[in-house]
Amino acid sequence: MQRIGLDDLGDLALGAAFLGTGGGGDPYIGRLLATTALAEHGPVALWPLADVPDDALVVPVGNMGAPTVLFEKIPAGHEPLAALRKLEAYLGRRADAVMPIEAGGVNSMLPLVIAAQARIPVVDADGMGRAFPELQMETFNVYGVAATPMVVCNEWGDAVVIEAHSAKMAEWLARGVTIRMGGQTSVAEYAMDGKTARRVSVPGTLGLCLRIGRGLHAARRRHADPFATLIALLKDTHYGFAKVLFRGKLVALHRETKHGFAIGYAAIEGLDDWSGRLVVTFQNENLEARVNGTVKAIVPDLICLLDSETAEPVTTERLRYGQRLTAMGVSVPPIMRTPAALQVFGPQAFGLSEPFRPIEANS
Amino acid sequence: MQRIGLDDLGDLALGAAFLGTGGGGDPYIGRLLATTALAEHGPVALWPLADVPDDALVVPVGNMGAPTVLFEKIPAGHEPLAALRKLEAYLGRRADAVMPIEAGGVNSMLPLVIAAQARIPVVDADGMGRAFPELQMETFNVYGVAATPMVVCNEWGDAVVIEAHSAKMAEWLARGVTIRMGGQTSVAEYAMDGKTARRVSVPGTLGLCLRIGRGLHAARRRHADPFATLIALLKDTHYGFAKVLFRGKLVALHRETKHGFAIGYAAIEGLDDWSGRLVVTFQNENLEARVNGTVKAIVPDLICLLDSETAEPVTTERLRYGQRLTAMGVSVPPIMRTPAALQVFGPQAFGLSEPFRPIEANS
Repeated sequence: MQRIGLDDLGDLALGAAFLGTGGGGDPYIGRLLATTALAEHGPVALWPLADVPDDALVVPVGNMGAPTVLFEKIPAGHEPLAALRKLEAYLGRRADAVMPIEAGGVNSMLPLVIAAQARIPVVDADGMGRAFPELQMETFNVYGVAATPMVVCNEWGDAVVIEAHSAKMAEWLARGVTIRMGGQTSVAEYAMDGKTARRVSVPGTLGLCLRIGRGLHAARRRHADPFATLIALLKDTHYGFAKVLFRGKLVALHRETKHGFAIGYAAIEGLDDWSGRLVVTFQNENLEARVNGTVKAIVPDLICLLDSETAEPVTTERLRYGQRLTAMGVSVPPIMRTPAALQVFGPQAFGLSEPFRPIEANS
Repeated sequence: MQRIGLDDLGDLALGAAFLGTGGGGDPYIGRLLATTALAEHGPVALWPLADVPDDALVVPVGNMGAPTVLFEKIPAGHEPLAALRKLEAYLGRRADAVMPIEAGGVNSMLPLVIAAQARIPVVDADGMGRAFPELQMETFNVYGVAATPMVVCNEWGDAVVIEAHSAKMAEWLARGVTIRMGGQTSVAEYAMDGKTARRVSVPGTLGLCLRIGRGLHAARRRHADPFATLIALLKDTHYGFAKVLFRGKLVALHRETKHGFAIGYAAIEGLDDWSGRLVVTFQNENLEARVNGTVKAIVPDLICLLDSETAEPVTTERLRYGQRLTAMGVSVPPIMRTPAALQVFGPQAFGLSEPFRPIEANS
């Protein structure tokens, strides 16, 4: 089984920031936490989804809250494992593996922290194939896994177990608890067996984060075009299609922490060969990219804002006036584009009026 | 063992409304729920606190939320028992009895509903000796019982188990969950053994509610002065002292549902022998009574607003312009006036600047 060690964390954090599409929580903080855990407990086994036994207990784990808060309220380091242990106690069974709830930022790194501390593998898959802002926006939920019982923990040892009649109610209650716990918590939820995990997860996303990170780092060393590198790399995956949507300078930014989310938009004015204006709206993650009023990419397809020099992903909470940014769009795997999936995390689930159009068709 | 049957509910509801000091939730709604439960399951055994065995599991149960919401969002009837059952499952043990969390309004009646449905007794005691707005304001907490694990349930089958490092944190989290569940929930908390219950509870308060209700009803039939009846009746209890503070007409009312509470004040202009103005402030329950600016009674002593004709208690959510009201003050039992108790539910716990002065000393 492949193992993720200290030397991999730089690549993993970079790739996770890319798939986070602006959200998922600051990857630097995730990297610090993972570095501490792996330095103490050694490398973590990465379990290919296909190899997980039918009856293994897989528990998705991660961080909940506004990235703008995570940036200032850094996890103590013991609460992610506490969330897993509390859910195990409630279920009356130890987990055989953890899995990321989403691909992106801190939530690709935190499962490594827990896996290292608990000495169990992390499954190479997740429930979003990117980052999304709300807990019901999981392929786990789309394909019938119950979100609850779920556990929400903070750094003071407070813990809440939620049983809800729907994933949306679980999100609503857990968000309220997270806000009252200061805007950032650790969660464990959607516990399932290995057979179910293979049916409902987006496979291979941790491995993909590693490949993206390695590819970008190698391109930088070779002084190669990082955007061409990303497009070529993604072509061979189940994501498949990627393209540059726009390039320019950030000229306007509206961002507030509201209802427990980072909500707003960024406007980018064209530079070089690009004219006009790109507007990207976000709720933690980037949702819609319009160039001169026309939609060029829309959720669930990925909209990534990258530094125009280095292709370093810029998360929502790090956006600043004057940044030179390149927007890249990426198609998501087929499991995330079914009618059932679009109902849960398509444009209408975010209150957007535009219908979903695959990014390939917008080009 | 004494049993509470359908014929007792009118007396009990009336006495509970009195001890509710304006809060505790509308007693009429509690009476409807108890009537349904007792009609179906028969009378409920009332267990004197002194008779509860050392190792019996006693679970305080009740309703959480703003009385203004309860008034419009009436419990379905199954969620109070669901809260008990969920806590029992979490503790791995069945309760031998339930107990009211507070004396007053719906929360003196709901334990009867659960006791009838679960076919267990209700302990004749509670954790407030009156009604208070927040969950940490319990003699249980004052004298060292952990508030959690506690369960919060709604009418849709959603349930939350809270484990908190303090009773105040439990209140903070449960209040947030209650707000997101629509402002009204059923709770089970402060589970304890019989030996502890005897040490930390205000004894005899359900029996007292019955006696107050019977006394008032009898006075009405005899056309006797109901206020003199109350003063005489309370003199023989561990409450001891009661007096009329003011009499007049409600001329101003400010009441809003904020942060999950009914918060505001009522101003009453003197009638008959009373001149000047009484102002009563409340957070669900009445907190402070000032006549012409001078404090005449202050929390935790009871401040009860009663109809001037019938001495029917008027709860916060039923206050209306023009009502003829008589304010009565009552001293609370010694267990509620220790320095430790005043720290948890004295004037400063509500942000009031006046120190506590026993009502006897204010007269």
